[in-house]
Amino acid sequence: MSTIVTLTSDFGTKDAFAASMKGVIYKVNPQAQIVDITHEIGPQDVWEAAFTLRAAAQYFPKGTVHLAVVDPGVGSGRRPIIVVTESYYFVGPDNGLFTLIFQEAERIRVHHITSAHYFLPNPGPTFHGRDIFAPVAGWLAKGIPSGNFGEEITDYVKLNVPVPKISPTMVEGHVVHVDRFGNIITNIAYKYVQPLLPEGAPNTVKIALMGKEISGLKNYYAESAPGELSAIFNSSGALEIFMFKQNARTALSAKRGEVVRISVANA
Amino acid sequence: MSTIVTLTSDFGTKDAFAASMKGVIYKVNPQAQIVDITHEIGPQDVWEAAFTLRAAAQYFPKGTVHLAVVDPGVGSGRRPIIVVTESYYFVGPDNGLFTLIFQEAERIRVHHITSAHYFLPNPGPTFHGRDIFAPVAGWLAKGIPSGNFGEEITDYVKLNVPVPKISPTMVEGHVVHVDRFGNIITNIAYKYVQPLLPEGAPNTVKIALMGKEISGLKNYYAESAPGELSAIFNSSGALEIFMFKQNARTALSAKRGEVVRISVANA
Amino acid sequence: MSTIVTLTSDFGTKDAFAASMKGVIYKVNPQAQIVDITHEIGPQDVWEAAFTLRAAAQYFPKGTVHLAVVDPGVGSGRRPIIVVTESYYFVGPDNGLFTLIFQEAERIRVHHITSAHYFLPNPGPTFHGRDIFAPVAGWLAKGIPSGNFGEEITDYVKLNVPVPKISPTMVEGHVVHVDRFGNIITNIAYKYVQPLLPEGAPNTVKIALMGKEISGLKNYYAESAPGELSAIFNSSGALEIFMFKQNARTALSAKRGEVVRISVANA
Repeated sequence: MSTIVTLTSDFGTKDAFAASMKGVIYKVNPQAQIVDITHEIGPQDVWEAAFTLRAAAQYFPKGTVHLAVVDPGVGSGRRPIIVVTESYYFVGPDNGLFTLIFQEAERIRVHHITSAHYFLPNPGPTFHGRDIFAPVAGWLAKGIPSGNFGEEITDYVKLNVPVPKISPTMVEGHVVHVDRFGNIITNIAYKYVQPLLPEGAPNTVKIALMGKEISGLKNYYAESAPGELSAIFNSSGALEIFMFKQNARTALSAKRGEVVRISVANA
Repeated sequence: MSTIVTLTSDFGTKDAFAASMKGVIYKVNPQAQIVDITHEIGPQDVWEAAFTLRAAAQYFPKGTVHLAVVDPGVGSGRRPIIVVTESYYFVGPDNGLFTLIFQEAERIRVHHITSAHYFLPNPGPTFHGRDIFAPVAGWLAKGIPSGNFGEEITDYVKLNVPVPKISPTMVEGHVVHVDRFGNIITNIAYKYVQPLLPEGAPNTVKIALMGKEISGLKNYYAESAPGELSAIFNSSGALEIFMFKQNARTALSAKRGEVVRISVANA
Repeated sequence: MSTIVTLTSDFGTKDAFAASMKGVIYKVNPQAQIVDITHEIGPQDVWEAAFTLRAAAQYFPKGTVHLAVVDPGVGSGRRPIIVVTESYYFVGPDNGLFTLIFQEAERIRVHHITSAHYFLPNPGPTFHGRDIFAPVAGWLAKGIPSGNFGEEITDYVKLNVPVPKISPTMVEGHVVHVDRFGNIITNIAYKYVQPLLPEGAPNTVKIALMGKEISGLKNYYAESAPGELSAIFNSSGALEIFMFKQNARTALSAKRGEVVRISVANA
């Protein structure tokens, strides 16, 4: 049984928010090992949290409790939930934050958190991360069964996640994230493109975005010349546009949502 | 007995400062659980550290050692101190950093740290966080009694903290913090305002700051329309000005010290 | 035996990179204590990582595993290595990141990591931090002997580190780092300057950089007036240019590489 609790939020690290949650978790569960995934999610950016959580969560030991709080609806009717997959527990608001977990887990069970005796006394309407989610995560990591926190529900919220369009010679997707290095990450997974690729001819592909065209795929970053706009399937298996030792985002003014196409040149 | 040591500083996270302190603590006390409150306090901003420490410290388990280093006077005559409250230990410079702890603790005892055998060998005059405060925090978390570190003192430094002016129909305070979301936090606590509020008529209040007027209080953020300047009592019980899904600081160019008034409209 | 694994990288904290490495380490070694040195190294800035790692690493307990990943050459021919010193293990790419460790350790042994059964299954060519270095660090901290990971090598990569020029009345070095406070740090160590200083006359030195001249050395920051350009030997024993309560980097537009001279005025 893991006692790890990870944290994903838009709280930043300059204020007391994240640390307050940690204090509450340790009070409930002094044995917890708390690990930050990130607190630098853009304010209220539920999609970015969903994307980052999916990328990191899978590398943690079985049984890890992943607490995620990007919660613009806090205090309104939106429900607090626990998501149980074959490997992990997820705790947070029912606002779509766990959409990509729902998509990829083999089986899921979702509980509406209602057992208030697990909460901080007198939880307020503005900071459920501290008053509800942190203590629930602490108790979960201590071994309290997920069923104790509330009834199972099936009408949990899912974000609308656009899927790439696939034709025999092309996959069309879009930009879903830009990372610290300015690398531009798309929702075009390798599994979509692999069937299109002629055996032994990886460089017949062309990638188009924002009026630019890139020929061929790199296998690693340093294969590219510094400043050359290039494409690669990255460590998450997604098509990524990069400029070696430079910032592709800055160079292209790329934003989430831009269309990206990868096509086989002369198939 | 908790073995948690929290850290609050203006060291940032890009340099070796914070990590050096952690290494020193682990050397003294391999069982320590080190938790960052924040290292993003503005350089030399003792008030901001006092504010953030107060907000976070209270959520940690009894016995936690809270180490705080915002220390422009390091190496000068300013004293290193330990503050002991009914719940916690605080370690840092005697420059007012613990003012809000002094105000709110039921009882306090302050020790001037002088027992140099607890320090790193040959402590220098520029980084007491690493050379003095970190090892002292490590030893405290290991159970060394606070009295072993030096004599009790009573003339410790307190910042001048302006208190709100309270009249039968109005409370006048000021902006004391702006958080990551651009929410503007005041020193007007709910306890000051509650006696003024007519039963069952929470929306008769008006809030004025920087030439703007806000009518009524929200109960939670999403009750407001995106971009609407609004007011709420936040998760610390303080009057806060916000713009839902936007940044009130940017919109108002608000800074610490601005006057804020909350009044009962037709009392 | 320490179970501490420190992390130094240019991954930032907004993406899943650093957290993915932590998850992998915990999976291999649930007892690991993971400590961030920093993830805010400038993208691909191997020198900055070398500098920061050297500054922080030495304060950790004997046996600590220091994992460092600033790795523009990932996926190319550059080797993954383990460096063993009398006190620590270092794990990362063979690109010069450990240059300052090589210089200062009393004895070192370097292993080329080739034992793929310690890696994540199917390691990719773009994120060895997660796929190779993290699991190797986890196993090292668990007690697997460094020799198990691969053969010893002696042709590891060292950065060219310029050394100060020393004459009987002057030491000439350059700016090697600028910290969060805007303090400008040089490669002029106190040990180079001490022999030049007349006993009992510390203020006869002059420091010149970027057309400015500073007379004398401060012992601590607050000895200087706010905004006065000043010099000090800092907590790492290096000559540092600062402006008390202001930002010397901003004031001087100082960058890495600027020449700095310290001379004895009337020796």
